[in-house]
Formats: sequence, C-alpha cells, structure tokens
Amino acid sequence: MILDRINFPSDLKVLNTQELIALCDEIRGYFQSFPFGKEGHKNSSIGVTELSIALHKVFETPKDILIWDVGHQAYVHKLLTGRKPELEQMRKKGGISGFTSRKESEYDPFGAGHSSTSISAALGFALGQRLHGAKRKQVAIIGDGAFTGGMCYEALNYLGQEKLDVLIVLNDNESSIDENVGFLTRNGSYDSFCQSLGIEYLGEVNGHNLESLIGSLEKAKSQSQPRLIRVQTKKPLKAVATSAEENIPTSFQEVFSETMVELATGNDKIVAITPAMLSGSGLDRFKEKFPTRTFDVGIAEQNAVTLAAGLAADGFIPVVHLYSTFSQRAYDQLIHDVALQSLHVIFCLDRAGLVGEDGATHHGNFDVGFLNTIPNLNIAAPLHGNALSDILHYAISEKGTWCIRYPKSNCEFISQKSDSKPIAPKLYKKGAGKAVLSFGAIGVEVENALAQSDYAHYNFPVLKPLESNSLVEIANSFEKLITVEENSPRGGFGDTVRALLAENNITSNVRSIALPDVFVAHGSRQQLLQDCGLDAQSILDFVNRS
Amino acid sequence: MILDRINFPSDLKVLNTQELIALCDEIRGYFQSFPFGKEGHKNSSIGVTELSIALHKVFETPKDILIWDVGHQAYVHKLLTGRKPELEQMRKKGGISGFTSRKESEYDPFGAGHSSTSISAALGFALGQRLHGAKRKQVAIIGDGAFTGGMCYEALNYLGQEKLDVLIVLNDNESSIDENVGFLTRNGSYDSFCQSLGIEYLGEVNGHNLESLIGSLEKAKSQSQPRLIRVQTKKPLKAVATSAEENIPTSFQEVFSETMVELATGNDKIVAITPAMLSGSGLDRFKEKFPTRTFDVGIAEQNAVTLAAGLAADGFIPVVHLYSTFSQRAYDQLIHDVALQSLHVIFCLDRAGLVGEDGATHHGNFDVGFLNTIPNLNIAAPLHGNALSDILHYAISEKGTWCIRYPKSNCEFISQKSDSKPIAPKLYKKGAGKAVLSFGAIGVEVENALAQSDYAHYNFPVLKPLESNSLVEIANSFEKLITVEENSPRGGFGDTVRALLAENNITSNVRSIALPDVFVAHGSRQQLLQDCGLDAQSILDFVNRS
Repeated sequence: MILDRINFPSDLKVLNTQELIALCDEIRGYFQSFPFGKEGHKNSSIGVTELSIALHKVFETPKDILIWDVGHQAYVHKLLTGRKPELEQMRKKGGISGFTSRKESEYDPFGAGHSSTSISAALGFALGQRLHGAKRKQVAIIGDGAFTGGMCYEALNYLGQEKLDVLIVLNDNESSIDENVGFLTRNGSYDSFCQSLGIEYLGEVNGHNLESLIGSLEKAKSQSQPRLIRVQTKKPLKAVATSAEENIPTSFQEVFSETMVELATGNDKIVAITPAMLSGSGLDRFKEKFPTRTFDVGIAEQNAVTLAAGLAADGFIPVVHLYSTFSQRAYDQLIHDVALQSLHVIFCLDRAGLVGEDGATHHGNFDVGFLNTIPNLNIAAPLHGNALSDILHYAISEKGTWCIRYPKSNCEFISQKSDSKPIAPKLYKKGAGKAVLSFGAIGVEVENALAQSDYAHYNFPVLKPLESNSLVEIANSFEKLITVEENSPRGGFGDTVRALLAENNITSNVRSIALPDVFVAHGSRQQLLQDCGLDAQSILDFVNRS
Repeated sequence: MILDRINFPSDLKVLNTQELIALCDEIRGYFQSFPFGKEGHKNSSIGVTELSIALHKVFETPKDILIWDVGHQAYVHKLLTGRKPELEQMRKKGGISGFTSRKESEYDPFGAGHSSTSISAALGFALGQRLHGAKRKQVAIIGDGAFTGGMCYEALNYLGQEKLDVLIVLNDNESSIDENVGFLTRNGSYDSFCQSLGIEYLGEVNGHNLESLIGSLEKAKSQSQPRLIRVQTKKPLKAVATSAEENIPTSFQEVFSETMVELATGNDKIVAITPAMLSGSGLDRFKEKFPTRTFDVGIAEQNAVTLAAGLAADGFIPVVHLYSTFSQRAYDQLIHDVALQSLHVIFCLDRAGLVGEDGATHHGNFDVGFLNTIPNLNIAAPLHGNALSDILHYAISEKGTWCIRYPKSNCEFISQKSDSKPIAPKLYKKGAGKAVLSFGAIGVEVENALAQSDYAHYNFPVLKPLESNSLVEIANSFEKLITVEENSPRGGFGDTVRALLAENNITSNVRSIALPDVFVAHGSRQQLLQDCGLDAQSILDFVNRS
C-alpha cells in the first residue's frame, strides 16, 4: 500500500502521477469501508479525493493557505496532513473534530463548520500578504452548495476590486445535502458571474482525472489575479441525509414533520421555508404533500427569513425551519424584518442545545440568549413531542412572531393527547423545600433526576413572556428555586427568573444549571450533557447541594 | 403650484408629462429648502425625485408592491403617498419615521432601515402572488451601495430560479455614504451579473429624464420575468456624512478616531476595517495616515468580520468598527469565525444604545444581550473618552476577542490622563445604604443623578468577564444594589450581577434600570433617555423608590 507511506504532504511530492492515481484508489477504498465519521461528510470527502491530493501535490502547504469551506469534506485532507492515526477517533469525545480546526493542525489555517466563509477568510490572508509581502498562495475550496451563501458574493465583489491573489476552487458536485438551489448552480453560469465581479474564470476540469487536475492547478498556481476554477466532481453515493424517516420514530423532528402536514391540511395559508435542510428538518414530507407551499432556498438563511417576512406581510403564515446554530446567520433579519414589524412568522429552531458529534461549531446553545433580548418575540421550548405539536398549533392560531426550540433527540409523543393550555407552566412533580424549574426538553432529565426525591418540578414551556403569576406563587411556596436550561448561562431562563422575582420585590437566591460559558467540543449528546452537568445525576447532585 | 394638488398617487395620474416635469422641479425645490429630515437622506431622496414620480405614475400603488431598500430615500415617496402634512415632524418624537414603515402607510408594504432586504421581501410577495394569484407587480428599488450586501445575491439567485414577477430598479447613483465599493459598481458590469443569475437586464435609463423613465418603466411593467433596470441618477450634493470632523469636538467618535491613529503609529500590525462607514466611524483620518491598512469593504458586514478573522489568523490585529445595529448582520461570523477561534480582533460597536432620530431600526440596544451569551468574548463599555482610549490600548495589548461599545454622544476627554487599570470597576462616589452600579457611558447620567444624594456609585467598564471580587465586596457593604445600563433588559449587566451574586450564595434583590423590552421609536437621544427612564432624574427617582 502506498497509503502506508503517506503521512504528510511532503510524502506526495516524491510520487509520480501513476502512483498518485493508485493512491487515490487506495484512499477511496479506505474511506468507503471506513466505519467512522459522518456518512454524508465521508461521501463529500471521498468526492474530493483527487482534488485533495492534487492540491497538496501542487501547493506548498502549510505555507500556502488552503481553506476548506465548511470543512466537512476534509477527511482526505486530514489524512494527508498528519492526522491519519487520529481519524478513527474523529467526532468522538477527545478525538479530532469532523471539521477543519486551527487548534488541530497548522495545515488548517482557518477553521470552519458553517458554510460560505472561506472566500472572506482567504481574502483576509491575501490582504495580509499584500501588507507583509509573504510569498505564498491563498486557495479557498468551496462547494456549489455553499456558494449560494451571500457572504461569497460580498467577498468576491471586494476581491475583484482589490485584485488579490486568491484562487477559488469551486467544487461543483451538483449537490448540497438536498438538491442544489439557485439559478447559478442549476445553469452553471459561473463564467459570466465571475466576469461581472472581476474574478477570472479559468474554466472547468474533471475532478476525478488527477492528471488534468494537477495540470490545471499548476497553471492556476502560476497566476496571481483573483480567479476561479470549476472542478466537476461526483460524490460516490447520494448523500445520506438524516431524513425524518430515518430518525428515531418519535423524535422532535418526526413530530414537527407530522404536525406541519396536519396543520397545513387544514389551513392553506401555511407555508414552509428551509435553507437547504429539507430532509434534515422533516419538511420533505411536507413538500410531498404541498410542493407549491414549500420553499427550499438553499444555504441562504438571510434570504429565507426576509422572504418569510414578505410572505407574512402578504397574509401567509410562514413556518421557517432553521438549525439553531444557522439561525445566527439571519439574526438581523429576524430582528429587523420580522420582530420589528410584528409579523406572524413561526421559527422552529431545531438542533437547539447540544448537538453531539458535530461539536463546537454546531451546538445550538446561544439561541435563548440572543432571542431573549429581542422585543415582540414569543420564545417557547416543548418538554416532549405533544408539547411541540400543541405549541405549534397554538403559535399558528395566535398572531405575532414565535421561536420554538427543540433538541435533536428522542421524545415522548402520544398523538391523541392534546393540551388546551400548552403555554402554561406545569407542575410535573409535587414536593417541598426546593423546587426545580425547567425550561424545555431538558425537563426530561429533571424528571429522571427528581423521581426518588422530595423536590418539586415545574416545567415552563414559554420563556418569553414568562408567566410571572405562577413564578411568584412558586417562589413564595419554596425555600429554594433551581432553574435548569440547556443553553448558555446568560440571558436565558435563570436570568429571567431572577429578574422577574427582583421586579416583584422578592428577595431570593435562585441557583441555575445551564450549559457552561465555553465552546463545548464534540462527543455524544449524552456524554456532553454529563460533562456539562445537565444529565439526571448531575442535576440531582446540584439540587442536593443547593 | 402643482405640488399643492398632490396628496396621493392618484393625483399624478391626471397630469401630463410636462406637468409631471414641472412637479419634479417643485419637489426638488421644496426639499432643497426643507429644513427637516436628515441631510444625507434628503439628498438621496432628491436624487430619486423623477424616479419616485415615475414609479407612482406607472404602477398602481398600493396594489402593486413598491419596496424601497433601506427606505432612507423615500421622502418623495412619502410626500406622494398621503404624508405631505407630516413631513415636518419626520424623525421627531411622535412624528413619522425617517424610513418606510408598515405601521405608517399602506403604501409601505414592507418597512426598512437596514440595507439589502428589498429583493428578498419582494421575492416573498412574489411567492405569495404565485399562490394566491393576485394581479399585481412587485418592485424593489435599491441603490448600488445597498446592492453590495450578500442578501441581494441570495435573493436574486433564488428569484432567477423561480422566474417570478419581480422588477428590480437599481438606483445607480455611484455613491453610498462614502465612495462605493466592489468590482460590480465600479465597473458597472450588471449585465453579465444579472445574466448569470437568471435576471433579465433591461439596460440603463437616465433617472432624471422623466419621459424616458416613464417609458422604460411602462415597458418593464408589461413584462413578468425577473428583471433589472439600471436607473442612473445623481444626488444634488455630495452626501453629507457625519464625519468625525463635524462631530462635537469631544465625542466618543472623535476619541476613537484619534486613538486609532495613535495606536497604529506605534504598531504596524494594527489594521482598520469598516463596512461603508469610513466617515461615520471616524476612520477617514486613519485612512489618510494609513491608506494600505484601512479596508472599507462596502455594505457587507459578514465579509468585514470574517475577513478580519483571516487577517487576525495571519498575525494582524484588526479593529472592526461597526454600528451596533449593523453588527447584527455579522453575528454568526463574530461567533463562528472570531470568538470560537479565539482570534485577536477588536470590535468597536458605535451607536450603541439609543441613537435618536433614526429610531427603531437603528437603536443599538441588543448588542449587550447577544454578545454576553458568546464564550471567549471580552465586553467593555467606557464611561468617558479617556476610558475608551485606555480600553482600546488595553485590548490591543491583550490577546483575545474584544467588543467595546459606546454611544453616539459627547464625552469627557482629557488626553493627558490615562488609567493604568482601565478594566477595573471604579468607585465614583462614596455613599451608604444603596449603591448604584453602572455599566458604560450611561454612568454619566448616574453621576448627575446621585450628585446631591447619599448613594454610592460604582462604574463597571467591563461586563464580561465581570469582576466578581469587587461585586461581592460591594454587595456585602450595601443594603441595596441598583444596576443601570443602556441596553435591553435581558442578558445584560443587571442579569449578570444577579447571577454572579447567586453563584456566590449571596441572597439579594438587585433592582435594575435598562431600556424597556420594546422597539423604541425615534426622537432626540435625550428625549428617549427620559422616556425610557434613563435620564438623571428618572434614575434618581428609581433609586429613591427602590
């Protein structure tokens, strides 16, 4: 095996083309039978086997700056840059990340996880180069899916003006997680697009023909203007997305999917919007039933949210599904276009809290804090599947802007049962002395924690507006309150409880359990809950100590 | 005067071209001697006099959907749509807004204030039209400055794919507030840009020739594909930007401007980045001294922040100046590209808190809440000019990511005086019984409030990390604490103080003064502070009552 001799890019330099081609086959074989990593990301990585090898053969990494957009397709790059022994621990607790990361390797000059940042980052390095005169190249490798994000255009437009030495390698694999979106990728009109922004279009090259790839990259390397080369690749398999079908039967994702179909059947004003997460959201079923009322706008969260605002201003009731972490991309639009105009838009923030193996770039732990500061919002988090369904029904029937957050996890769901007061705080367990107040689905851990104890448990499905009468009553009935929430410690449930009690002149010492104020690394969701003190045992210990 | 007979678009329909041309002159004259409104916005509005009249002549508003991007150039539109009598009260407390607003008029189907949202909003209406079959047209009017925002590209790419009936009127006035940025506007390559995205380019028209304008718009109206017409206009005067030079001599803006030049003189790693606010930020002086180290990236906050991250990863120390309200546009980039990678980038968030006449879309009241939820950040707010200068020096000398917020206001600044511990909490006034704890520049109101009282005053220049030793000591020395901050009530200083005391097992009832949890309308900054209970008298009353 040639692969056995490959540990660093320097090991590629001594191989001839035939050996490199053989190496590609070995690497494809290696990853095809590789039982680790994330399936979809592995496929993306296998699709760029030749490209990864060609880039490291042609460029002088780490001196030359290679920036992989999103970083999910960098498994081969990791293998080639000193991380082969660590691949099996990738995405596991303590192991390397599933994305590129500055902490991990000098061959990752800029980390990622979210989409469409690579050109801006490469532009930053190129501006740096112009100042300090380093002899090197800047290369951004970006898929046609990620190329739909608005950041790319902002960066290209400035790059074209500044005429800096950045090579953009467009990995045109004609697929994102779902079908790719946008006129540009569907029509392949990159030539005129580039031309209009001052980026030289270097043409297309077959991404699986290593020889032409190396030739084209050598040529591209020798130039120094802003330029884009379009590398046509195929992923080995259709990307395996986490479709709702494949989720655990009663997950929040499944309940969302079912409830949306049910709601839209009875109300033709309801429309669904997703930025490139049709299957991940469970809206694929909705699309089957209501194709004209489903809008997958591609990786373009800003457009998703303001387009929803336009639909709401026109009398529709848009439900926008966003992964919590990606909703950060549309924060201004949520404030300025939706909440400020009091439009009736419902945001379902999926993958809220700890997401597990995707790690620090993907945890949805900031949403509660950044939403709670916005006026006019209703912020809810269901404890279980029934609550999600009931709250969604409620939000559709009420006016105003709603954010409903739920984790990627299993949940209890009894489809017959429905609650006429889904937004009211609920007593889940009577008790004395100490009362635990939970917000959202983490209440399940609290239930488990307190089962054998004398403590009371109340679950609050709505953080904003917080039901102050219930809260005051509870505060007056117990010596000690402990709040539990699965999000960053500042600006969330605990802070709101303390503030409301202070406003009501109730002297208190409310203790809080929340995620720690750090970027949490990757690991299984259950492991991370434990590490963060949010599993049942840790919660019980905390309550005992408080 | 024809103008006297004009109140609604229907009044235009009966006029012939000669009368309309005469009306344009009257309106230009009217606004040129109009002593109200914001100078720069008035100029932008005068520049689109003919365009505004032509649009309302040709289209059937409010049935047809006209969406003005940003909405700052809509003074003539307001005059033509029933708001002539209210123009004099525009931007004043209780008067109409300086931007478009759904609350204000049915002729404003979608409000604005921030840039680059109009195409997404029009796209939403067009999707609605496809569903309900309304007979109408969707028109987005957007300047070439606003066209640099990434949202535009996201929206156009989807619009081109969906082939919906949206007309984009590109108001090419070759200027934003400062010189326009980007290859596209500098080279006018809109034809190939549009073509690449499936938008038909209808060519150019002189925006001051009413007859050709009406003819071109009539033709554009008769079509129904996605299409863009480029209207070339000139503003009557160079836009009057609020340059640092024109600010009150000792404003925070002036101190920032001076300090940046001073810092960069001694450290060639320091670079400055602004998204289209070179003069508004005070970085115009920096650019004069350090042209190669100043990057105005245009209205493209996302690119500004990630490009800064790239520069920091390359060893530079970027200072990114953002208006607090526009930093919302780059929230994900701040989290994912800067803070998560612990990069040494300094964000100066100007126009923090209440901004006055620009109103609800522009107040910088959310930043503290949405930043405080992010790990790895240092969040500071200077009380006065010296503190801003000292904190900036400190942030440059320390590693890590910094956010320094300050309002658009006058401040005390004695250039000789400097503080060796700029981030430490400071006792400003001794007292007993009650202590007022202020965060940031609102501390000046607290000083005025407490001058004749027995209460103590401490100012905290740093919210994150909050100095807990001082806090605990203060809490143990006073019966009552009152926090004061100029931002939304959730997730800020008050919440953090209560949380920290709870963690230290200190039972307390800390009362808080903050901005109310509503979108605050426009008015003078001082009026608004009073309305929000943050002027000296209101603060004193609150402390007395507490």
